[in-house]
Amino acid sequence: MKNIGFIGLGVMGGPMAANLARAGHSVVGHDLGAERVERLVAAGGRGAADLADAVAGADVVITMLPDSPDVEAVALGPDGVLRQARRGTLYIDMSTVRPETARRLARAGAAAGVRVLDAPVSGGEPGAVEGRLSIMVGGEKADFAAAAPLFEVLGTTVAHVGPAGAGQTVKAANQLVVGGVYALVAEALVLLEASGVDGRTGLDVLAGGLAGSRVLDLKRASMVNREFTPGFRIDLHHKDMGIALAAAREADVALPMTGLVAQLIAAARSQGHGSLDHSALLKVVENISGKDRA
Amino acid sequence: MKNIGFIGLGVMGGPMAANLARAGHSVVGHDLGAERVERLVAAGGRGAADLADAVAGADVVITMLPDSPDVEAVALGPDGVLRQARRGTLYIDMSTVRPETARRLARAGAAAGVRVLDAPVSGGEPGAVEGRLSIMVGGEKADFAAAAPLFEVLGTTVAHVGPAGAGQTVKAANQLVVGGVYALVAEALVLLEASGVDGRTGLDVLAGGLAGSRVLDLKRASMVNREFTPGFRIDLHHKDMGIALAAAREADVALPMTGLVAQLIAAARSQGHGSLDHSALLKVVENISGKDRA
Amino acid sequence: MKNIGFIGLGVMGGPMAANLARAGHSVVGHDLGAERVERLVAAGGRGAADLADAVAGADVVITMLPDSPDVEAVALGPDGVLRQARRGTLYIDMSTVRPETARRLARAGAAAGVRVLDAPVSGGEPGAVEGRLSIMVGGEKADFAAAAPLFEVLGTTVAHVGPAGAGQTVKAANQLVVGGVYALVAEALVLLEASGVDGRTGLDVLAGGLAGSRVLDLKRASMVNREFTPGFRIDLHHKDMGIALAAAREADVALPMTGLVAQLIAAARSQGHGSLDHSALLKVVENISGKDRA
Amino acid sequence: MKNIGFIGLGVMGGPMAANLARAGHSVVGHDLGAERVERLVAAGGRGAADLADAVAGADVVITMLPDSPDVEAVALGPDGVLRQARRGTLYIDMSTVRPETARRLARAGAAAGVRVLDAPVSGGEPGAVEGRLSIMVGGEKADFAAAAPLFEVLGTTVAHVGPAGAGQTVKAANQLVVGGVYALVAEALVLLEASGVDGRTGLDVLAGGLAGSRVLDLKRASMVNREFTPGFRIDLHHKDMGIALAAAREADVALPMTGLVAQLIAAARSQGHGSLDHSALLKVVENISGKDRA
Repeated sequence: MKNIGFIGLGVMGGPMAANLARAGHSVVGHDLGAERVERLVAAGGRGAADLADAVAGADVVITMLPDSPDVEAVALGPDGVLRQARRGTLYIDMSTVRPETARRLARAGAAAGVRVLDAPVSGGEPGAVEGRLSIMVGGEKADFAAAAPLFEVLGTTVAHVGPAGAGQTVKAANQLVVGGVYALVAEALVLLEASGVDGRTGLDVLAGGLAGSRVLDLKRASMVNREFTPGFRIDLHHKDMGIALAAAREADVALPMTGLVAQLIAAARSQGHGSLDHSALLKVVENISGKDRA
Repeated sequence: MKNIGFIGLGVMGGPMAANLARAGHSVVGHDLGAERVERLVAAGGRGAADLADAVAGADVVITMLPDSPDVEAVALGPDGVLRQARRGTLYIDMSTVRPETARRLARAGAAAGVRVLDAPVSGGEPGAVEGRLSIMVGGEKADFAAAAPLFEVLGTTVAHVGPAGAGQTVKAANQLVVGGVYALVAEALVLLEASGVDGRTGLDVLAGGLAGSRVLDLKRASMVNREFTPGFRIDLHHKDMGIALAAAREADVALPMTGLVAQLIAAARSQGHGSLDHSALLKVVENISGKDRA
Repeated sequence: MKNIGFIGLGVMGGPMAANLARAGHSVVGHDLGAERVERLVAAGGRGAADLADAVAGADVVITMLPDSPDVEAVALGPDGVLRQARRGTLYIDMSTVRPETARRLARAGAAAGVRVLDAPVSGGEPGAVEGRLSIMVGGEKADFAAAAPLFEVLGTTVAHVGPAGAGQTVKAANQLVVGGVYALVAEALVLLEASGVDGRTGLDVLAGGLAGSRVLDLKRASMVNREFTPGFRIDLHHKDMGIALAAAREADVALPMTGLVAQLIAAARSQGHGSLDHSALLKVVENISGKDRA
Repeated sequence: MKNIGFIGLGVMGGPMAANLARAGHSVVGHDLGAERVERLVAAGGRGAADLADAVAGADVVITMLPDSPDVEAVALGPDGVLRQARRGTLYIDMSTVRPETARRLARAGAAAGVRVLDAPVSGGEPGAVEGRLSIMVGGEKADFAAAAPLFEVLGTTVAHVGPAGAGQTVKAANQLVVGGVYALVAEALVLLEASGVDGRTGLDVLAGGLAGSRVLDLKRASMVNREFTPGFRIDLHHKDMGIALAAAREADVALPMTGLVAQLIAAARSQGHGSLDHSALLKVVENISGKDRA
């Protein structure tokens, strides 16, 4: 049993914290939304008076926050996690942020005597609820080992992928590939249908060969039917593509496909589809060919 | 048992014709390379004196040729297949050509009383040798049914995907997705390695999640090791991207990702990697980031 | 005074042939549209009975046709220009076609004793009417010198740019740059307006600095006003981008920007703007950002 | 005569501050590099003891700093410009930063009683030295009027383009167009040369027609000669493309060309050309086609 301070009880963080509480850990949650805190209490956790209260007695602090600036504020701010945490605390940021942010946290943690892991996840809300996330972890091996029992509560695929920042880098790589595969499948579908080929039949063939992918396996039926209930929202993938481009910049590499995918996902958002599933990239590809559907 | 005229006994057509002969069909092969014809004879077929000889007594004529102009010359030329074939002959073009070429053949066939199918394949030389190709077929349902026993000799996945040209359209869609996925995986790998993450570990994680694909399953190990023995050559994928762009033009759709993938594959060829496996797209992505390996 | 056979009396060819007639040359025109031939007669030319009639007595044959296959049919066909022309005739193809087509014409001309130039133009319908075209000429220097007096009737900027095909290559390079600059100016304008900056003011500043261009000079006012009367139609630029990509393929180079520009122009056409001016690329860029105007 | 505090005396800021001093203004300069301060003193200015000293007695404060975080630190930090400046001071940030940073400065200035303009420049080091910059100014009209006499010392083209942030938006739009035009001209040149056309001749023709641009006018000779002495460095253009993409994100628009241009410029930097002129984008385009020169 660990004493866990959990900061950020949103769509992802809420069910993750609840799963940890249900697994028998003492979870003290902090979030500005009172209703969110209530939900953790209902699952067996406790609401923190403030951030300091969540961090004070914790063996492990977890943050699950929207974006890099949020994490930097909560972790590095004057009253932030690294100031409040006892020496030897294990601090795990499970948000999706820039690799450089993860490395900053690790450096600041080292200075403060706090052990830091970056551990972004994939699998979306269903994965968070069902404890079936994939977790990509960067940081020291010993710290990963210490955190492993908690990760096993939260996910089914857990991998230590390298030093500080590596978890975020792998997440960024994952997101650029996923976004790109959606765009490619969308282009294939638009080409098929505009050529008079039944989309379902055509994508079935693609799914069975070298063009096959998890995206085709899981999403081709809903794409053919134009069902775009999330799943994982365009808005979040847009944020993640920003991170992927920032990661490329930090690593001093040029990624032409990623640059284009980022703009196509930005287009989905600009066109008002930000709250649809990321497979709604199809709407952008249809639209650019004048094949919009009502 | 069918009387088959088989035109084009190259890397793909050679083993395909041989498999049909071994399956008990009477195969008369035509190719300008005498050595290629010899190989068919060794497998139980017969060499044709000329194209007319291959077509004259055939129930089924199959062409397996490099590109659209070759097929148009052989099929539509003054002494071509459609002139030589008896009424009622089934003519199957298994080359990868433009959908518009397939539709031209079908129209010309209708005028000449010849039934025409377009039936491009994927699976490469190993698939041709082992009779494990995927075959995408466009044309009349009844003609597909008539050809099905032959397709079963040649491949394991055989699908009738729509009217004339549909087979070529599905093949084009397949190739644009495959080329694009290679480019995305290459960008992911370059980002990972340049960020200090072990490429194998990172791609293993991607392969297990929503970023997963047949390309990752089959090729990530060789990509990490920079082993680019074909498989399927860049030169052929370059040709196929030209077909995909032509198909988009014919269907009056715009495919931005496909447009970029085509240029990246063109770059692989320009840089001298035309005879390597298409996974060598990685070399282009490395090169653009100044990460070339000796 | 030259005897000129002029084949193709359309939007461009019509006024060009008329200008040659008005300049005192004997012009025999051929076109399938009787009304077009009438217009040449009104300008002082003569209508040909057929292609042979136009070519038979000509010192110079000029073709001005829509696309590569048209030129190949008219020039290389069994009753085509090269068959009909006397040895020593100067044959100038002023159509915009693939460099490879121009080189084929030159090779076939050499075999037939006909001197061949490729001489595509820019400047659009107004340039044709006013004799103010730019003319890019490939072929032998002596043949260029022989043709120069005719070119001076048709255009104001006339350049011999290299051997056979060079004229078409320069035209292709011109069109990829023009298409790309339109796309860039469109992106700049969409960014400015979406950021609350007056488009006219912003583009005025760009026009005065290193971002300045002929496109900004001539078209920024109409772009800001969303006036897209051609000028030069999207449909034609779409054709020309196909030529530019084919030229890149023939030269074995990879052009990523060109690949993307081609798809954006294809999108303009797919969206139904084919008959608008190429500056209507702005509509694609607006559309992709959800900023369409009624 | 104005009392000016000038912060950031680098390649651009140094000569700008010197020009203001020579024009008779009292300039107190601040920079961490003592040598840079010396140069201002030599031009008739004074060195500040610290930032507070530069700001304390100033009517006008100018910052000319590398990037958004620098400006935010100097302007908004606990001892920053807005804390130190007297109410009514005019604060002009002439750095190139994100439009959102400019808007933040304006909001913070309003709260502190300081009038703020964003006034990025183009024209590079020569323009700074010779007082021939182009200056794009965002902010209140009255504040622009107050600053105009100073701008006239620094530049020849000065435009008030809109409210706070507008100057930065116009600069971003300028840089995306310039970067894109270089990439297009590079692709044209590579296509010409690989096709056997003399690059100089071909680009001369382009420069005279609708493809013409300031880039072609000023840089085609050096590009043909592969002379890449800056001018304006790739590293800076790389930074500016990051700003352009951030500006697009802030304005919620999608810019596909810009996305690709940013990666090509990133490639130039990744390949080690960061300190060359931005026309060295040509090296990336050559390289991708396997046409590298020693």
